[in-house]
Amino acid sequence: MKVIPIFEIIREDLERVERKMREVSPIEYEQLKATLDYLLGSGGKRLRPALVLLSSKFYPADADKVTPLAAAVETLHTATLIHDDLIDNSFLRRGNPTLNTMWNSAATVLTGDYLFARAAAFAAETKSARVISIFAQTLMTICNGELKQIFGGDKGQLNREYYYQRIYSKTASLFAASAEMGAILSGASEPEVQALHDYGYNLGMAFQIVDDILDFAGNEGDLGKPIGSDLRQGIITLPTIHFLEAHSGDETVPRVLSGRDEEDDEVRAAVEMIKESGAIEASTAEAKRFAARSRDALSTLPHNEYRQAMLDLANFVVERRK
Amino acid sequence: MKVIPIFEIIREDLERVERKMREVSPIEYEQLKATLDYLLGSGGKRLRPALVLLSSKFYPADADKVTPLAAAVETLHTATLIHDDLIDNSFLRRGNPTLNTMWNSAATVLTGDYLFARAAAFAAETKSARVISIFAQTLMTICNGELKQIFGGDKGQLNREYYYQRIYSKTASLFAASAEMGAILSGASEPEVQALHDYGYNLGMAFQIVDDILDFAGNEGDLGKPIGSDLRQGIITLPTIHFLEAHSGDETVPRVLSGRDEEDDEVRAAVEMIKESGAIEASTAEAKRFAARSRDALSTLPHNEYRQAMLDLANFVVERRK
Repeated sequence: MKVIPIFEIIREDLERVERKMREVSPIEYEQLKATLDYLLGSGGKRLRPALVLLSSKFYPADADKVTPLAAAVETLHTATLIHDDLIDNSFLRRGNPTLNTMWNSAATVLTGDYLFARAAAFAAETKSARVISIFAQTLMTICNGELKQIFGGDKGQLNREYYYQRIYSKTASLFAASAEMGAILSGASEPEVQALHDYGYNLGMAFQIVDDILDFAGNEGDLGKPIGSDLRQGIITLPTIHFLEAHSGDETVPRVLSGRDEEDDEVRAAVEMIKESGAIEASTAEAKRFAARSRDALSTLPHNEYRQAMLDLANFVVERRK
Repeated sequence: MKVIPIFEIIREDLERVERKMREVSPIEYEQLKATLDYLLGSGGKRLRPALVLLSSKFYPADADKVTPLAAAVETLHTATLIHDDLIDNSFLRRGNPTLNTMWNSAATVLTGDYLFARAAAFAAETKSARVISIFAQTLMTICNGELKQIFGGDKGQLNREYYYQRIYSKTASLFAASAEMGAILSGASEPEVQALHDYGYNLGMAFQIVDDILDFAGNEGDLGKPIGSDLRQGIITLPTIHFLEAHSGDETVPRVLSGRDEEDDEVRAAVEMIKESGAIEASTAEAKRFAARSRDALSTLPHNEYRQAMLDLANFVVERRK
């Protein structure tokens, strides 16, 4: 199993989580098993299970609960990606064809549902009502955020507060919950549980801002998806907010966002304008502020190699190129 | 609130469940609330929450756990209906337009997901790991059954065992789980938990067979959906199995099932042939056998008004006309 260097100290735990995620349920239909292997094998960074594991390391925790919880958060994440790709009609995810390009929407919806159920079953193995409740609330937050985006008709809202709310729902909520739940299972004190929640929250915010930056400044080969896809879909992210704040007279970017002109040339031109405007640097500075806050949140925790890995992870998420 | 006469003895409990289901979550977006009201108000019989409530009545149970559990099973059921209607492209459910006719598929998928999350959050309020685990396993059974139907390409499998498996996944699994979980929360003994599980299982099998019969022999006005919709979709149910076993030379019914000819006249002719063949009566006899088994399962339980209501319910599900 390939892991990022920071995760070498939890490699064995991550491998246990991997096996757990691939456990075959007795009720499972054969073709479903092959599909789950495909989905789970498509090479995510396993950040969310790693957060569960690292957060559980400050006090002695029961691996029979931590492993299923880590499997639960990654399975939940996979389920939301499947439904997202269907909804956004995306073709590629991590360089692989998405489920919705291979199957009809019925099978795609149901496979996502099945993974939600599997995730809930894993979460139930913790036997902690508090953990299970956080888990369910987090899924509500994620879905509610997406519904708001669809119904609000405010995809194009030029508003930093709205942007932060959206990336909280989409990403930071599950990062925060993963760290918080790991801490709870280890029996950490309430202030420590809160500290690890805050670490996860800020890390998740930084991570998503960087994701949104890479959609402009990344490399298509590294990312496994086309550049400028947010602009193409009319989704305003932080670099675009910075650009439009500084260039209120510009017409190209709003035209691409409005979907009136989705020519590749036009999208590329808009991406270049945003990249050359200093918006990437300004957005990176914001991501770094969140990363710094995530490191600060760890100040009261015992100093050990796991805390160090979490500090390193906060640097990794802002420095990554994919 | 309208309840069937059998449920008068649990009217107050059902009303409490109804309020619970409509509790507004602080994170909820306004339009979502209106939609949930529409969905929850569309007049189901509330059989699943009633099963939770009735099964919990043999020993003193904590209403603060039973109410959320009953809300959880009905919310889960509503979520699966939303995704089913989307997948089957159904237009009407209980005489009302389905969500997928009013909204795009993105909003429909996400609303279903949101309700899954809400259901899981309600289930977590029981603080019972055993209950939560059964809950999650049941959702897995439901999704897996549907996936099998899609992937197996065996919609048209002419096989009673396959049919029973399918209606178990689709309906009886949640009936069985509802009764079982209600019993667990009341602290019933293990044999009693098993007995109530068996009651729910057999009741659910009877219920679904009758549903499938009504798709031929029911009244469109009562049902709020067109007659013959299973045939039209190529789904073989018990009446069709009985008919084809007795009329292996018939060409009309296989033609309608294969979708080569979906003319209304042809569908109506096939429905009439099946109705006149004795297949409805044979199917009804099977439903009655399941109902009898559900009543038998209750024999070891304390005799009281709740047990009587459950016996009456077994008659109701086979005698209902809608």
